[in-house]
Amino acid sequence: MQFDTIIRGGTVVTAGDTFVSDVGIRDGRIAALAARLEGASEIIEAKGLYVMPGGIDSHVHLDQPSGDGIVMADDFASGTRSAAIGGNTTILAFCMQQKGQSLREALKDYHARAEGKCHVDTSFHLVITDPTPEVLGQELPALVEDGYTSLKVFMTYEGLRLRDDEILATLDTARRTGALVMVHCENEDAIRYLIGRHEQEGKLAPRYHASTRPVAAEREATHRALSLAEIVDVPIVIVHVSNREAMEEIRRARQRGQKVAGETCPQYLMLTAEDLDQEALEGAKYVCSPPPRDKASQDACWEGLEQNVFDLFSSDHCPFRFDDPEGKLNEKGKRHFRWIPNGIPGVGSRLPILFSEGVMKGRIDLNQFVRLASTNHAKLYGLYPRKGTIAIGSDADITLWDPERECVLTNDMLQHGADYTPYEGTVLKGWPVRTILRGKTIVSDNTLRVQSSGQYLPRGRSGI
Amino acid sequence: MQFDTIIRGGTVVTAGDTFVSDVGIRDGRIAALAARLEGASEIIEAKGLYVMPGGIDSHVHLDQPSGDGIVMADDFASGTRSAAIGGNTTILAFCMQQKGQSLREALKDYHARAEGKCHVDTSFHLVITDPTPEVLGQELPALVEDGYTSLKVFMTYEGLRLRDDEILATLDTARRTGALVMVHCENEDAIRYLIGRHEQEGKLAPRYHASTRPVAAEREATHRALSLAEIVDVPIVIVHVSNREAMEEIRRARQRGQKVAGETCPQYLMLTAEDLDQEALEGAKYVCSPPPRDKASQDACWEGLEQNVFDLFSSDHCPFRFDDPEGKLNEKGKRHFRWIPNGIPGVGSRLPILFSEGVMKGRIDLNQFVRLASTNHAKLYGLYPRKGTIAIGSDADITLWDPERECVLTNDMLQHGADYTPYEGTVLKGWPVRTILRGKTIVSDNTLRVQSSGQYLPRGRSGI
Amino acid sequence: MQFDTIIRGGTVVTAGDTFVSDVGIRDGRIAALAARLEGASEIIEAKGLYVMPGGIDSHVHLDQPSGDGIVMADDFASGTRSAAIGGNTTILAFCMQQKGQSLREALKDYHARAEGKCHVDTSFHLVITDPTPEVLGQELPALVEDGYTSLKVFMTYEGLRLRDDEILATLDTARRTGALVMVHCENEDAIRYLIGRHEQEGKLAPRYHASTRPVAAEREATHRALSLAEIVDVPIVIVHVSNREAMEEIRRARQRGQKVAGETCPQYLMLTAEDLDQEALEGAKYVCSPPPRDKASQDACWEGLEQNVFDLFSSDHCPFRFDDPEGKLNEKGKRHFRWIPNGIPGVGSRLPILFSEGVMKGRIDLNQFVRLASTNHAKLYGLYPRKGTIAIGSDADITLWDPERECVLTNDMLQHGADYTPYEGTVLKGWPVRTILRGKTIVSDNTLRVQSSGQYLPRGRSGI
Amino acid sequence: MQFDTIIRGGTVVTAGDTFVSDVGIRDGRIAALAARLEGASEIIEAKGLYVMPGGIDSHVHLDQPSGDGIVMADDFASGTRSAAIGGNTTILAFCMQQKGQSLREALKDYHARAEGKCHVDTSFHLVITDPTPEVLGQELPALVEDGYTSLKVFMTYEGLRLRDDEILATLDTARRTGALVMVHCENEDAIRYLIGRHEQEGKLAPRYHASTRPVAAEREATHRALSLAEIVDVPIVIVHVSNREAMEEIRRARQRGQKVAGETCPQYLMLTAEDLDQEALEGAKYVCSPPPRDKASQDACWEGLEQNVFDLFSSDHCPFRFDDPEGKLNEKGKRHFRWIPNGIPGVGSRLPILFSEGVMKGRIDLNQFVRLASTNHAKLYGLYPRKGTIAIGSDADITLWDPERECVLTNDMLQHGADYTPYEGTVLKGWPVRTILRGKTIVSDNTLRVQSSGQYLPRGRSGI
Repeated sequence: MQFDTIIRGGTVVTAGDTFVSDVGIRDGRIAALAARLEGASEIIEAKGLYVMPGGIDSHVHLDQPSGDGIVMADDFASGTRSAAIGGNTTILAFCMQQKGQSLREALKDYHARAEGKCHVDTSFHLVITDPTPEVLGQELPALVEDGYTSLKVFMTYEGLRLRDDEILATLDTARRTGALVMVHCENEDAIRYLIGRHEQEGKLAPRYHASTRPVAAEREATHRALSLAEIVDVPIVIVHVSNREAMEEIRRARQRGQKVAGETCPQYLMLTAEDLDQEALEGAKYVCSPPPRDKASQDACWEGLEQNVFDLFSSDHCPFRFDDPEGKLNEKGKRHFRWIPNGIPGVGSRLPILFSEGVMKGRIDLNQFVRLASTNHAKLYGLYPRKGTIAIGSDADITLWDPERECVLTNDMLQHGADYTPYEGTVLKGWPVRTILRGKTIVSDNTLRVQSSGQYLPRGRSGI
Repeated sequence: MQFDTIIRGGTVVTAGDTFVSDVGIRDGRIAALAARLEGASEIIEAKGLYVMPGGIDSHVHLDQPSGDGIVMADDFASGTRSAAIGGNTTILAFCMQQKGQSLREALKDYHARAEGKCHVDTSFHLVITDPTPEVLGQELPALVEDGYTSLKVFMTYEGLRLRDDEILATLDTARRTGALVMVHCENEDAIRYLIGRHEQEGKLAPRYHASTRPVAAEREATHRALSLAEIVDVPIVIVHVSNREAMEEIRRARQRGQKVAGETCPQYLMLTAEDLDQEALEGAKYVCSPPPRDKASQDACWEGLEQNVFDLFSSDHCPFRFDDPEGKLNEKGKRHFRWIPNGIPGVGSRLPILFSEGVMKGRIDLNQFVRLASTNHAKLYGLYPRKGTIAIGSDADITLWDPERECVLTNDMLQHGADYTPYEGTVLKGWPVRTILRGKTIVSDNTLRVQSSGQYLPRGRSGI
Repeated sequence: MQFDTIIRGGTVVTAGDTFVSDVGIRDGRIAALAARLEGASEIIEAKGLYVMPGGIDSHVHLDQPSGDGIVMADDFASGTRSAAIGGNTTILAFCMQQKGQSLREALKDYHARAEGKCHVDTSFHLVITDPTPEVLGQELPALVEDGYTSLKVFMTYEGLRLRDDEILATLDTARRTGALVMVHCENEDAIRYLIGRHEQEGKLAPRYHASTRPVAAEREATHRALSLAEIVDVPIVIVHVSNREAMEEIRRARQRGQKVAGETCPQYLMLTAEDLDQEALEGAKYVCSPPPRDKASQDACWEGLEQNVFDLFSSDHCPFRFDDPEGKLNEKGKRHFRWIPNGIPGVGSRLPILFSEGVMKGRIDLNQFVRLASTNHAKLYGLYPRKGTIAIGSDADITLWDPERECVLTNDMLQHGADYTPYEGTVLKGWPVRTILRGKTIVSDNTLRVQSSGQYLPRGRSGI
Repeated sequence: MQFDTIIRGGTVVTAGDTFVSDVGIRDGRIAALAARLEGASEIIEAKGLYVMPGGIDSHVHLDQPSGDGIVMADDFASGTRSAAIGGNTTILAFCMQQKGQSLREALKDYHARAEGKCHVDTSFHLVITDPTPEVLGQELPALVEDGYTSLKVFMTYEGLRLRDDEILATLDTARRTGALVMVHCENEDAIRYLIGRHEQEGKLAPRYHASTRPVAAEREATHRALSLAEIVDVPIVIVHVSNREAMEEIRRARQRGQKVAGETCPQYLMLTAEDLDQEALEGAKYVCSPPPRDKASQDACWEGLEQNVFDLFSSDHCPFRFDDPEGKLNEKGKRHFRWIPNGIPGVGSRLPILFSEGVMKGRIDLNQFVRLASTNHAKLYGLYPRKGTIAIGSDADITLWDPERECVLTNDMLQHGADYTPYEGTVLKGWPVRTILRGKTIVSDNTLRVQSSGQYLPRGRSGI
């Protein structure tokens, strides 16, 4: 056999297996696995490295317009650059429907934003904010057929949140079309109520973002989303779970027999509400929803990763610049936490954190890492077996990890658009030393080597 | 000492104690307890009988107008007559606010409906259906001061249900005023969704009332109500719980540290969804919400009574005539379950059922019976110690129970306005042979002896 | 009516009720309750005081001989004196069978120890340490008939502990005779194993008493005891529960349908394992089994009292002098925690602590206090309605509590035989200002007024 | 590359992946995976077939001597023949220590029994029945080093069961040596107690085997084993779990942070206690421990397989002939259930049942099947990556499954020594059409093709 590239002598790690093997790549796909392969124009030495499926980050916000003069810190170029640097070969971004907008229009807009800019492969979840009969009855079934097979709905954020009847209608459409629905679970009305009480008491600093979005508001919405899915009889994904009580709802739903996928994110392992409580508005950097909780919640989220409460570990990358009138510290945001844009950057740091804190500290094993970083995303969102594994016929999306490489994380390493990372100064053991997309090395030595080679990925239905 | 009446030689049963004692009554109140009292114009022999606090039914619908030509089968006269026959001396009825109506207006209307008609003492819960700032901010605080200390909100029924923000505002008012909020927990949107699916499939018979209101819809709303109360930090009452899953939510809330009272009703012990599935629309008789579930749910509700998940056992008396164009079998109701008025009669049968099935079958003891039948209602709804016990200074509201009296329940025994009882033919052991209201025998030999001696009861704040 | 004594104008509190009433006493029993009673040789003014049933402490060790030269600090005289001072009118002590000894012999011994010394009424639980067929088949059935209706078994302590087959045989005897079995739940083998590991590591200080008896050893034995009772189909009492995990076992057993009573003690509300970790062997004062746990366990035990996981609040009074070669600091005990005698004094401080920390701090209400302090003990151990309430015909065992009396607890106030109290310096609000036993004031002004008026109490079967 | 054998065109299924690939085998190992491989002396066409890792049955009893004239129906020849027929390439059998016997002696005996007879690869778990200091302190550490890395202890069966102190000592040895302990969890004393009650009532038929071994006895022992492991701080395996309550103990232990593997078996999916209740002692065929439970328990066990409560699906093959004086119907067994030997055959039927009932009925997916059938056994018991997967360098132990092959299971298909299968008449979809051991086809067309090619497998430490 003749190959374009051979990755030689590394330890291949997949969702289920760990073994030493050469990997032969031809035409951008994995063509052969064997102890020794010969015959390739490019040989990549991987002795002592882990040869893993490229990371898939299935929860990424890029270039989303918002009102109020706030600008997201990453477009598809800088966001996917950071993704590639951090060991990813695929991201799933959100295409956000505007009120009154058709989904086709929204997609046209987002495809234009992404076109020609992506350094990794990309696909879109459709965020449903205006679930008219037209949208649910006509557009969506056709779009699911066209490969837009996942939807997202919000239970919080004025203007985005859906009412229960709208969620039910959306879930019913999913049931009929085979789409998969992701839900952001926080009770908007409860949060509004608490904001009101805080305002009466003059509590407006960033730290009150956390106390107005308590665990109970997340637990309530999580249970409600799960119950609505139970009633419609359709699987769902609970995204960015931050604490034990919401995890318990997922466990209970599964014991009732429901199909549920769970997701958590680095911020719930690494940050706490205390990070929001700092001098000089510094806390604004950590404003995201749900907010980071406490140490016990971090432990709970690790337990959830170890014990398969969570299928997915995603970034919920939603970047804003900090010291910027179009970012965290806009004029209104300086005076009241509710105007601080919600979200933190993370697409580049997600995998190094999980590898260092999870694998190297013995909390999860290598195969769990691969599942949480890549395989489960591919299976859940209809990209498997094209993506998410190292198997014959799959895309040669491969990241080489050096478990011995140590470094201290700094913002500039991440090459995203934000002017900070919440994880500045974190000591890391293990780093993705090479990222290969469909057989081409796109990142090595922490440097982007190939521009804009990412493709758009239509997807099949979920394997949940 | 001189008494008006002495009840002689009975076994006094209270929430905590069981002992043989004479009971001396003067001026309508309990004046003395002793082994032997002398000196009264009236001596009531009670040897072999249980001398118990008069029953309090804190969940009774009477004379509520509704649109669509449906007429409730009981006004305050017939409803309180049946209550007295069934061993009660107090009922708490609902005063239903109309949309746009002030609470004062609503109260004026309901006081007029009750005035001069009540055979037992009566008070009103305020049903909030239009929680305007005016209502919550102005009217309610004044009404709570005036003794209207409990509210009810609905999470189901189009036109009655409140949205989460309205529930939060109402709970917040309760927090500020010390009122206690009762919640009917079923998710209206989920029910609507299921009705829609049933209609598409032509499923319109009475039995589909049950399948469109599944346990998940009740569990969801129960958890939501509890979570909203947790967020506001205020106690609540979960009324008419029908199944183990909703019970589990109450248990979980208590373990989180919340103050919650729970209530169940005879229909959840005695009926199942199969009762709705009968020939010739007969099932319409059993249409109520939440619907009766299954045998396992009955067992769960008994467990809840035994293990104090439930503090209250009420009737949720909501009577309609069956074979009547203004009742269950109205023109539209014959064709589609959703037009069958929801509710069943129960104010007269509640206590005999609990006594016979509970006490005489060994599931609960006499003191539990008294708590569930009377004392807890008084304590929870601000009537204690005036009502709900046999103690010095309390109103002499006393029911004598003969544990040896056996009978077969028939509709005419109950003397209510409905033309049926769901419990027709139930074999009962134990019967309330005399009902005494403030010292006067109002029922004996199953016959009302004094007309309209009931008084209106302003109430204090809840002892929860 | 003519009375021996009238308690005038106090607030009578029972398990279920709270009301202002005079209490008329004749022939040592409660003869009348009324707003105003006249005609007695003695009038006790009780205005502003709570008139409560005398405390019953159902878990008290007195004058138990042990090998090794260790001497218990209280005999029946000093122990019941302290009990009376602390508001109790009845205690249940243990009669400990020696290996090879018949129960009749053991009873003869303990009756002799108690005879003529008791200042409060007294009865015995039989501790079964040698459950021979003779003991279980012959002696016990006769003794149960004679009014010895409760047994205790140990799952820990070499020489006392029973094996599972012996526990099963004992439970089976209980099932056949109607006796009630109390179980001390800790896994002896697990403790032995951990002691061995500690010894290998030279960990011999008092604080290691706690780490060799972990929560898991208590939870395990609790679940096992409950499972054996489930298999035999008989109620049991789990005594001195120290933590949430053991509580959870009780909750689970009840949800399986088992009849279980639970008990906790002041040490699990007021102490933690840190108290064992002090300079100069001071920690030996707090050595008891199970050991005090942590702050979260204290909160859990309060929750258990509030939410009826626990029916009983007892002292587990088991007193040893501290700085005494026959006490805590015996020669061997100074060198190795396992030779420190297990147990702390508490019969006198139990109720003031529960009143001050529970009632006055709003954790439990007055009626809960009465149930936990008195009524439930009487009902569970076959003394009701003679003991445990203020009702017509019951023994006039009454304690007057002054909720305004404040003091700082010191050891000499308690008048027991130990040279310390673990609760030294605790600030108390509320104090039992008068203790009345069968109509006679035995304690007032913190002074014993009548010597040795306690009687032995044969008991009926449990009301569980 | 040159291969000995190429498996062509099948769908390779591993624990994590499913992909179409040729498999190249050389020197008994998997040498290459690629879309198309050439160059082999043997080509096996596998189009339309699943190419799966050979099954590993880690719970098999073979040729165990017992007293009383009972003879096990399979020796290592017939047992491994049936295993191979049923798609297995490795079994783990038990080496049973006799009281007083050294482990080396026991191993010598069992190696002699197995030597030269095995048709699949074989290894031994050591059953510890006499955990003397010599055995635990000297022999075991050396044997673990020699590759005997798993132990089993019994909590039931007179003569085999260990006491808690013995279990603790054994677990402690495991902790120090890295061995893994399997536990049979049933409370022997409770069972003895119930047998005694049954005997008093003359209940001696086979069906009473089930009622004397209730769920509570299994749940108790399961919780106890888990608690002892928690206290020692060592992982354990709970074998042959039969019901939801025992599953719940595993879930709870994991949430406490323990490492626990769980196992269930075909009998708990396919049989119920009703199978023991048949005419003419027919029920004796189904006597095994724990006994099959009820339909709800079957559902629970399926849930446990789906939701990873169980890591292992094993046969607990323990075969006896039915109508045989040396088998089920021995003289004493005909008269009393306790003399019916415990155990049923299953090594051959395990995988076809799991494939047909699990995969083909949609309860588990193909990758779950591989994990439960093979991979997890290899990882847990120290055989991975040599066994349990299809990866470069692993033994070429491969089973080809035809998902379209349908058949009705009969005893003669299974080629074991028992004269019955409990699953006679089960309709199966899917069958293992070829079994390949280290590159050699040992079974095809349901016929053993190579005799006795099985090897003994020393093992590494568990990957738990």
